[in-house]
Amino acid sequence: MPRPQRQVLQQAVVEHGVLMAMEGYRGFLGLLVSALLVGFLSVIFVLVWVLHFREGLGWNGSGLEFNWHPVLAVTGFVFIQGIAIIVYRLPWTWKCSKLLMKSIHAGLNAVAAILAIISVVAVFEYHNVRKVPHMYSLHSWVGLTALILYIQQLVVGFFVFLLPWAPPSLRAIVMPIHVYSGLLLFGTVIATVLMGVTEKLFFVLKHPSYHSFPPEGVFTNTLGLLILVFGALIFWIVTRPQWKRPREPGSVPLQLNGGNADRMEGAIAISSAHSMDAADAADAESSSEGAARKRTLGLADSGQRSTM
Amino acid sequence: MPRPQRQVLQQAVVEHGVLMAMEGYRGFLGLLVSALLVGFLSVIFVLVWVLHFREGLGWNGSGLEFNWHPVLAVTGFVFIQGIAIIVYRLPWTWKCSKLLMKSIHAGLNAVAAILAIISVVAVFEYHNVRKVPHMYSLHSWVGLTALILYIQQLVVGFFVFLLPWAPPSLRAIVMPIHVYSGLLLFGTVIATVLMGVTEKLFFVLKHPSYHSFPPEGVFTNTLGLLILVFGALIFWIVTRPQWKRPREPGSVPLQLNGGNADRMEGAIAISSAHSMDAADAADAESSSEGAARKRTLGLADSGQRSTM
Repeated sequence: MPRPQRQVLQQAVVEHGVLMAMEGYRGFLGLLVSALLVGFLSVIFVLVWVLHFREGLGWNGSGLEFNWHPVLAVTGFVFIQGIAIIVYRLPWTWKCSKLLMKSIHAGLNAVAAILAIISVVAVFEYHNVRKVPHMYSLHSWVGLTALILYIQQLVVGFFVFLLPWAPPSLRAIVMPIHVYSGLLLFGTVIATVLMGVTEKLFFVLKHPSYHSFPPEGVFTNTLGLLILVFGALIFWIVTRPQWKRPREPGSVPLQLNGGNADRMEGAIAISSAHSMDAADAADAESSSEGAARKRTLGLADSGQRSTM
Repeated sequence: MPRPQRQVLQQAVVEHGVLMAMEGYRGFLGLLVSALLVGFLSVIFVLVWVLHFREGLGWNGSGLEFNWHPVLAVTGFVFIQGIAIIVYRLPWTWKCSKLLMKSIHAGLNAVAAILAIISVVAVFEYHNVRKVPHMYSLHSWVGLTALILYIQQLVVGFFVFLLPWAPPSLRAIVMPIHVYSGLLLFGTVIATVLMGVTEKLFFVLKHPSYHSFPPEGVFTNTLGLLILVFGALIFWIVTRPQWKRPREPGSVPLQLNGGNADRMEGAIAISSAHSMDAADAADAESSSEGAARKRTLGLADSGQRSTM
C-alpha cells in the first residue's frame, strides 16, 4: 500500500480506537468506583473479622499471626491484584507512556505477590508452632499452586514485556497466554479465598455453631460475597472492548492470527489489528513512549466526545 | 459503498473468518480431548468418592441422598455446563444451522440446570431429615445465588436468542452480558464446588483427620484440582479468537460499538465486525439457516487449510 494511504488508514484506526475507548466513559467511572468501593469494603471486612471477631493481629506463631493470612491474602492477592489487572483501562493514564503503565502493572502485581508470600509464611509458622501438618487441604493445594504460577507469571512478564529486549514476535506469542493466565489466576485466587473462609469458619464456629447463624458466620459469608462481587466487576471492566487503552499512533500491531492476515491487504489487515481479544489488546502493542507523549487527542477532548 | 464492492469485501471477511477459525485445528482437537478427558475423570472421581469412600447413593433422606449433591453438581453444573459453553466452537458443527446449535447450547444448559436443581433438592431433604438448618454456609449462599442467576440466564437466553422474535438491536445489547454472565457463572460454580469439597472434607474426615492425609482427603483434593483444570481448559478454548464459529455469509453483524463504526466506511466497518470479544462473536450474528447450509467451504477443505 502507498505510504500516504497507509498513514491515513493508521490515523483513522487511532481515532476510531480513541472514540471506541472513550465510549461509555461515565459507565466506566461508575463501575471503577463500584469496584474500588467493594474492594475497600472487602479489606475493611477482613480487618473487622480478625480484629473484632477473632483474636487480632500479631507475629508470634499464635492465632494472631495466622490472622495475617486472610488480611494479606484479601488485601494483596485479591484487591491489589484486581487493581493491577485494570490499570491500563484508566482513561487518565492513556497520556502516560506505555512503559510507565507496564511498570505500574508489574509493580502492583509484585506488591500483591509479596503480600501473598508473607500471608503464606504466617500460616506455615502458625502450623509449625501448633504442630499442625502443612498442605493437606484443597485450599492449600490450590492456593500454593496459584502463588507459584503467579510468581512465574510475574517473572515471565518482566522479561518479555517490561524489559525492552524481547522481539515483537515473542511478545505476540506470549501476550494471549499472559492475559489468559492473569485472569485465570485472579479467578483461582478468589476461589481459594472462598475455600479459606469456608475452612476457617467450620474450624472456629463451634459454640455457637456455624449452622446457628452466629454474627461472625453471617459477617464473614458477606465478606465472601463482597470478594466475589469485586472479582465480577474487575472481570467486566477488563473484558469490555470499548474501554481498552487506545493503540499508540505508529505502533506495530502484534499479529495473533499466525500471519494469515498477511494475505489480506489493507482493510483486513486493519481488521486484524482490531480483532484481538479485548484484554489482549490492552497490552499487545510495542512500547512507544514518544508516540504516547505526542498523542494528538488530549483526554479532555476525548471526554467530550464520549457518547454516554 | 457500491453493492458489488461490498459483496467482495463480505466474501473476503467470510474467508478470513474461516481461515482464522480453522487455524490451529489440531491444537483445538488436542485441547478439546483434554477437556473431555479431565471432565469425564472429574465425574468418575466424584462417583468413586461417594460410592467407595462415602456411603453410596440413594434417595431416602440419609447420607445416601446427600451424596447425589456432589455427583449431580459435578456432572451437570460443571461438566455439562462446560460442554454447553464450547459447543459453538466444534468445527464439525459449523455446517449445521445456527438455530440447531443454539438449541443444543440451550438444551445442554437446561439439562445442567435440572441436574443442579435436583442436587440442591437432595441437600434440602437431607437437612430436613437431620434437622440441620438450611443456607448457613458461604458455599450455600454462593451456590444458590449462582443457580438462580443460571436459571435467569437460561430464560433470558431462550427468549432473546432462541426464539426468533427479538430484534437484532436487543440481541446486540444482551449478547455481551450473556457471554460475560455465562463465563462468570461457570467460574462461580467451580468456586462453589471447591468450597463444597472443602466443607464436606472438614465435616467427615475426623478419624483419621483430614490433616493426616487420609486417602479420601488426597483423592478428593485431586477431584478439586481436576475440576479446576477442566474449567481452565474450557476458559482457554472459549476465549481463543481463532477458534470461533465463522460468521454466516450474508448475516448482519451486530455492532457492539454504539454505532461509531458507521462513521468509517468499508475497511473500518469490517474491522468493527471482527473486533468483538472472542466469545461474543461465537453467537453475535443473526440466525441464518439457509446461509449456513449454503456454506461454500466444506469442513474437509477448511481442515486442509489449517496451518497447525
